[in-house]
Amino acid sequence: MAITLRTTDTDFEKRFAAFLTTKRETSPDVEAVVRDIIATVREQGDRALVDYTRKFDRADLDALGIAVSRADIEQAYRDADPSTVEALTFARDRIRDYHQRQRPSDDHYVDAIGVELGARWTAVEAVGLYVPGGTASYPSSVLMNAMPARVAGVERIVMVVPASGGTINPLVLVAADLAGITEIYRVGGAQAVAALAYGTETIRPVAKIVGPGNAYVAAAKRQVFGIVGIDMIAGPSEVLVIADGDNDPDWIAADLLAQAEHDTSAQSILITDDAAFASAVEKAVVRQLETLPRGETAAASWRDFGAVILVETLDEAIPLANRIAAEHLELAIADPEAMLPQIRNAGSVFLGRHTPEVIGDYVGGPNHVLPTARSARFSSGLNVLDFMKRSSILKLGPEQLRALAPAAITLAKAEGLEAHGRSVAIRLNL
Amino acid sequence: MAITLRTTDTDFEKRFAAFLTTKRETSPDVEAVVRDIIATVREQGDRALVDYTRKFDRADLDALGIAVSRADIEQAYRDADPSTVEALTFARDRIRDYHQRQRPSDDHYVDAIGVELGARWTAVEAVGLYVPGGTASYPSSVLMNAMPARVAGVERIVMVVPASGGTINPLVLVAADLAGITEIYRVGGAQAVAALAYGTETIRPVAKIVGPGNAYVAAAKRQVFGIVGIDMIAGPSEVLVIADGDNDPDWIAADLLAQAEHDTSAQSILITDDAAFASAVEKAVVRQLETLPRGETAAASWRDFGAVILVETLDEAIPLANRIAAEHLELAIADPEAMLPQIRNAGSVFLGRHTPEVIGDYVGGPNHVLPTARSARFSSGLNVLDFMKRSSILKLGPEQLRALAPAAITLAKAEGLEAHGRSVAIRLNL
Repeated sequence: MAITLRTTDTDFEKRFAAFLTTKRETSPDVEAVVRDIIATVREQGDRALVDYTRKFDRADLDALGIAVSRADIEQAYRDADPSTVEALTFARDRIRDYHQRQRPSDDHYVDAIGVELGARWTAVEAVGLYVPGGTASYPSSVLMNAMPARVAGVERIVMVVPASGGTINPLVLVAADLAGITEIYRVGGAQAVAALAYGTETIRPVAKIVGPGNAYVAAAKRQVFGIVGIDMIAGPSEVLVIADGDNDPDWIAADLLAQAEHDTSAQSILITDDAAFASAVEKAVVRQLETLPRGETAAASWRDFGAVILVETLDEAIPLANRIAAEHLELAIADPEAMLPQIRNAGSVFLGRHTPEVIGDYVGGPNHVLPTARSARFSSGLNVLDFMKRSSILKLGPEQLRALAPAAITLAKAEGLEAHGRSVAIRLNL
Repeated sequence: MAITLRTTDTDFEKRFAAFLTTKRETSPDVEAVVRDIIATVREQGDRALVDYTRKFDRADLDALGIAVSRADIEQAYRDADPSTVEALTFARDRIRDYHQRQRPSDDHYVDAIGVELGARWTAVEAVGLYVPGGTASYPSSVLMNAMPARVAGVERIVMVVPASGGTINPLVLVAADLAGITEIYRVGGAQAVAALAYGTETIRPVAKIVGPGNAYVAAAKRQVFGIVGIDMIAGPSEVLVIADGDNDPDWIAADLLAQAEHDTSAQSILITDDAAFASAVEKAVVRQLETLPRGETAAASWRDFGAVILVETLDEAIPLANRIAAEHLELAIADPEAMLPQIRNAGSVFLGRHTPEVIGDYVGGPNHVLPTARSARFSSGLNVLDFMKRSSILKLGPEQLRALAPAAITLAKAEGLEAHGRSVAIRLNL
C-alpha cells in the first residue's frame, strides 16, 4: 500500500521532507565499462560496432548492415497495423503544431547611443536520437524527440536503435519515417553513443545526442558531454494528481496506475482534501490492479513509492506541489485555472477532470520528455530551443566605441587585464 | 610562434582537423577528493565549511562569520575606486537592458477541436552564484552571472566567494550589491558548491548553481548535478578574428592578445585572405607582447595555441569559422552583415572594425559567459532562459477527450501500456 501523509499530523513536515528525498533508483556503476567501450569505438570504428552488437544485441551487422535501408522502412510499414500508423501520424501532426509555436525570434535593435545589438538563433547542425530496444522501444518517444528537432530546422537527425536479436520494432521505424528521419543505424548501448559523438566510417558525428536509455547509455552520454551536447538524464516517471472529492475515484485510480505501470520505480502521488475520496481511490487502485497486464509492476510502484497526502484545504496542496516539482501534474479540481498561476514547479500541467496525463503521452501536442526527480525546479521539458542556440550580436562605430571605451578600460584595469584595455584604447589613440 | 595553416596546402584539411581537436586543458582527477568534501559538508554543515575554509583559504570563519554583512558591503564601497564603481554601474545597466529583451512570453491558444494548449514560464526560485577568489575574482563576471537571473525574476540569488587569506575583492562585493544580491557567503571550493546544493545551518539550498571555478568547483558542480541544475562547465577562453587586409595590424594584434592574456590555455586565431597583413599582425603581436604586464601568459598562449589561417577568399573563412565554433568571433571586414547570416556556430559575434571583443567582456550588453571549446555548435551563452523553466499546459473537455481518445488508446495498446489506455477509456465509458 502507498504511504499516507496528513498535513495535520505533527510530524508531517519531517515525513514529507523524507518522502521528497527518497531515492527511487540505484544506478549501477558502469563508468569503467562504458569508458572502455567508447575508447574501443573511437579506435576501431565500425568494427567495434559490429563486435559489440554481436555480443550485446545478438545481431549480425555484417549480414544486416549497420544502416537501416529504405526497403527496411517499407517493410516496417507493411508489418505495422494501419490504425497504429494512422494514430502515429495524428500524433506527429499535433506534436508538430504545438512545437511550431516555440520557434524563437531573432532580435536586432539600436540603443540610445547608436550601438547595434541583437541575437541570432540557429539550429544545431546534426542531432543523434537514441532509441532503446526491447520493451522500452516506444514509437511515441521517437516522435517526441524528433519533432522538436525537425521544427528547429536541424538538417541531419540520426537515429540509433539496437536490433535486439536482429529485429527492430517496426513502429519505431515508422515513427522515424513519419518524423522525417532518413538516417537510421542498428546500434545501441554505449557503443551507439560513442559512434554518434566521435563518428565511425559509416556514422558521421553529430553535435548533440538526445533520447532515453539504460544505465550504459546514460553513462555514455555523461562521458561524451562536452564533445557533444546532451539532453537531461531521465529518471523514472512520476505523476502528482491534485483532486477534490468530486472526482470519480476510478478515473483518478486509473491515472495513478497509468504512471505506476511504467516501472517499479515510477511514482504516483495523490493530494486531496477529502479523506473518504482518498479511501475510495485506494480501493479502486486495488480493484483495477487485478485486471492489469502490467499489474505486478504497477503494484510494486504503488506499494514502494505511491503516496496519498491529505490536506485540510486544497490551498495547502500548492506549496507541496511546488516542492514535489512533479514531472506530470494533474489538477482534477473545479477551478484549475485559479490554481495554475501559483504552480511554479511542474514539467507539464493537465487541467480539469477530462485531461488525463496519458493524453499528453501521445496526442496532446506538448512534449512527453519532461524533467523527473524534482528537476522541474530548474529545467523544462524537451522543446525546440533544445535544438537551437543563440549567438549574441554587437556592432559599434567609432562614436559608440568612444562612448563605451572609458568604462571598459576602467574595468579592464581594475581586473588587471592590460591587453584588454589596450585593444579598446588602441582604436581611439588613447 | 603561432602555427600557420594555408587552405592551399595539400594537407590543410588534415592539419585543420587536428588543430580542431587539440586539447588545451588537462583536468586533474579530483573526483574522489570532491566526493569526500561534499559528503562531509552534508554531514557536518557549517562546521565543515569553517574547517575547509581554514585549511584551503587560510581564513577563520568563526571570527569573520560565514555570511558577509551589510557593513562589509559598505566597507567594500569605501575601499573601491569610485570611477570603477561608476563603470560597474554603467556595465550593470547595459547588461540589464540587453537581457530584458530575452524575457520569454507565455503561450495560450485553443486549437481547431477546442483543446486548450499553452506554456507558462516561471523563474527558478533560488540560484547560487559561484565566484572564484584570488586573481580570477572578476567583478564583471558577477554582473554577467547575476543580471540574467535578476531579469528572469529569481527571488533568491546567493553568492559564494572564498575569502582567500580572509579578504574578498571589494569590487566583487560592490558588483554583487549593484546586481541586487543580498545573500553572500565567504566560502569557496567544492565545499561551497556542496553547501549550495544540500544546505547547511546557515546556507539554505538553491535549485541551480552557476559561475566559473577551478577543477574542484567544476567537479563538485558535476557531482551535484541532478540535485540542482548547473550551467555549462567553462573551458579556457578563445577568439576567432576574421579580418581582411584593410585593418590596422596593431588593432587586430591587440585583440588577439586580449584573449591570450587570460590564460596560457586561451586561444587566439586569425583568419585572413592577406598574407602580408597576417605577417604584419604577427609582428605587431611580438612587439606588443614586450610591454604587456601579463606578457608571459599571453606569449605562452599565442605560442602553444595561437593560429593564423590563410584563405584565398574570405568566403572560405565561413565554413572554417563554423567548424571552429568560437566563443568570440570578430568580423573585422568591410561588410560584416553580408557574412553574418552564414555564421552558424559562434557564442558571440562582433561586427566591424570598431567592435573589439573586449567591449563585450564589460559594457556591450550581451553576456560574456559563453560556450567554449567548440560547444557553440550546440549551446548558447548564459541568458535569461537559463534561470527560467517552462511548464506545458493542456486542457480538454469531454468533447476534446472524445476526439483524441481513439489515437491515444491505439498507441497505448501498441506500446503494451494497458493502464494508459484505461485512464482515457474509463472517462468515456469505452
